[in-house]
Amino acid sequence: MTFDLPAYLAERKRLVDEALDRALPAENVPPPTVHRAMRYSVMAGGKRLRPILVIAGAEAVGATADVVMPTACALEMIHTYSLVHDDLPAMDDDDYRRGRLTNHKVFGDAIAILAGDALLTLAFRAIADNGALVRDPAVVCRVVADLADAAGTLGMVGGQVVDIESEGCEVGADTLDYIHTHKTAALIRASLRAGAMLGGASASQLAAVTTAGDCLGLAFQIVDDILDVEGNLAELGKTAGSDERKKKVTYPAFHGIEASRRRARELVDQARAALDPLGSPADPIKALCRFVLERRS
Amino acid sequence: MTFDLPAYLAERKRLVDEALDRALPAENVPPPTVHRAMRYSVMAGGKRLRPILVIAGAEAVGATADVVMPTACALEMIHTYSLVHDDLPAMDDDDYRRGRLTNHKVFGDAIAILAGDALLTLAFRAIADNGALVRDPAVVCRVVADLADAAGTLGMVGGQVVDIESEGCEVGADTLDYIHTHKTAALIRASLRAGAMLGGASASQLAAVTTAGDCLGLAFQIVDDILDVEGNLAELGKTAGSDERKKKVTYPAFHGIEASRRRARELVDQARAALDPLGSPADPIKALCRFVLERRS
Repeated sequence: MTFDLPAYLAERKRLVDEALDRALPAENVPPPTVHRAMRYSVMAGGKRLRPILVIAGAEAVGATADVVMPTACALEMIHTYSLVHDDLPAMDDDDYRRGRLTNHKVFGDAIAILAGDALLTLAFRAIADNGALVRDPAVVCRVVADLADAAGTLGMVGGQVVDIESEGCEVGADTLDYIHTHKTAALIRASLRAGAMLGGASASQLAAVTTAGDCLGLAFQIVDDILDVEGNLAELGKTAGSDERKKKVTYPAFHGIEASRRRARELVDQARAALDPLGSPADPIKALCRFVLERRS
Repeated sequence: MTFDLPAYLAERKRLVDEALDRALPAENVPPPTVHRAMRYSVMAGGKRLRPILVIAGAEAVGATADVVMPTACALEMIHTYSLVHDDLPAMDDDDYRRGRLTNHKVFGDAIAILAGDALLTLAFRAIADNGALVRDPAVVCRVVADLADAAGTLGMVGGQVVDIESEGCEVGADTLDYIHTHKTAALIRASLRAGAMLGGASASQLAAVTTAGDCLGLAFQIVDDILDVEGNLAELGKTAGSDERKKKVTYPAFHGIEASRRRARELVDQARAALDPLGSPADPIKALCRFVLERRS
C-alpha cells in the first residue's frame, strides 16, 4: 500500500477549511463580536482530524467528501466549542491553546461562553443542511441522534464532568477509562460513524467502522496523554505538563510510558484489522490510524 | 368562544412535565452531578410556555400533541439552557431564578456551564427522535435548521450578546428592538413554527403561524419588561427591578408603561387576526396570546 497520507491530509484539510469559512457567519454580520470569537477559535489552525474522519468514513463506504462536508464542519464546530468552554476559568482555566491566547482571554468569559453555545448550535444547523445532499433524510435524524449522544452527558460532556470532579483526587483505572472513552473517544468514533452513515453504509460496514472508531478514539487519547507528559510549549502550543501540574489523571501516570505506547499500538492494529473487510476504500482511515499513533502534536 | 384556557394549560403542562421527566437522564445515571443539575433547572416549575406553543402550533394545523412531544421538550431544554448560562457570574450574575437559587449557586460554575451545554445537546437529540413520529423525516431537518437559527447568533444568542454589550450604555430604539426580537421572540416564534411544521402545515398555514409567532414573541418580551419594572420578589421569584438595577434597557424605560401596554395589546390583536384563516383549531394559540398579555409572572 502506497497511500500518500500527507497529500491526503493536506487536500482534505483545505476542503474543510474552505467549507468552514463558508459555514461560519462573516465577522461583520451582527452581532460582530460573537462571530469574531467563533472564527478566532475555529480558524486557529487545528489539524481538522474530526472532519477528515467524517470524510474518510464516507469514503470507506464508497461516498465522496462533498456529500458529508456540512457534517464534517459540524464535527469541528462541536470540537471547538468544547475547547472554548473547557478553557474557561471556571473549568480548566487555560490561557493558551494552539500557541495563541484562549478565547476568553481575548473576548472575555461572557462572549466565550456564548461563542461556544453558538458553535454547538450551528453544528446542528450544519448537519440539518446535510439533508439536502443525501437520498434518505431519515439518516440525518440518526446522525443528529448519534452525535448528540456522543457530545452530551453520555459522551463528551460526561467525560468532562468526571475529569473535573477527578482533579486532585486519587482515581482508579475504571475512572481513567471512563474519562478517556467519553471525553475524547466518543466524538472521534462518532465522526467516523457519521461519515459512514451519511455515505450509505450497510449494517456490517457501519459495525466495522464503529469498531475502528472505538479503537482509534482511545488510542488518540492515550497518545494525547503521552504527548502532554513528554511535550513542550513549542511543540504543543500549550503549557507542557499542564495535566500533571493540575494533578489530572493520565494514562502514562497510571500505566507508564512504555505500556501506554504499546496499548496505543495495539488499539490501532485492532482498528486496522476491523477495517480489512472494507478493502481499499478504507485505506484513508487506516492511514489516519497511523497518523494518530505517530503524531508529535 | 368559550375555550377553557386554564384547563388547557394545566393538561398540556402535565403532558410536557411527564415527557420531560422521561427525556432527561435519571439522577443516578453516571455522571450523576450533571444530571442532577439538568433536572434541577428543567424541573424548577416553569410555565412550559414554549413546549405548549409547539403543541398549539401542531393543533392549529390539525395534528395532536403526541406527534410533537419530543420537540416540545426540546424547546424547554433550549430555553432552560439559556437561563442557566445567562445566570452565570460571567453573564447576568443572578443568584435567584423562579424563587430558587440559580444552577451555578447550587452546583458551581463548571457544572452549570456543562449542564447548559448538555441541555442544548439533548434538545437536538429530542428533535431527531421526532423523526420516528412524522411521515416525512425531511421536515425534521427543516425544524432542526429553523430552531438552530432561532437559538444561535442570528437569534437568541445574538440577542444575549447585544444585551450584554448594551449594559450601562445609552442605546437607541433600534438596539432595543434587536435585543427583543432576537433574545426572546425568535424562540417563541420558532416554537409555534416547529409545531406547525411537524404537524404538516401547508405553506399558507405556516405563514399565518409565523406572523402570529412574530407578534406573540415581541408582546411576550414587552410584558416581561413591564413585569420586571412593576414586579416584586414574591410574584416573579427573582429580584424585582433587576434589569433597572443593572441599567439594562427595557421597553417601558424607553416608551413608558402605558405605551408599552398598548403596544403589547396591538401585537396580540395582530397575532389573533393572522390566525383567523385557520379557524377553531387555532383557538389554543389565540388563548395563549391572551395568557401572555394578562400574565402576572
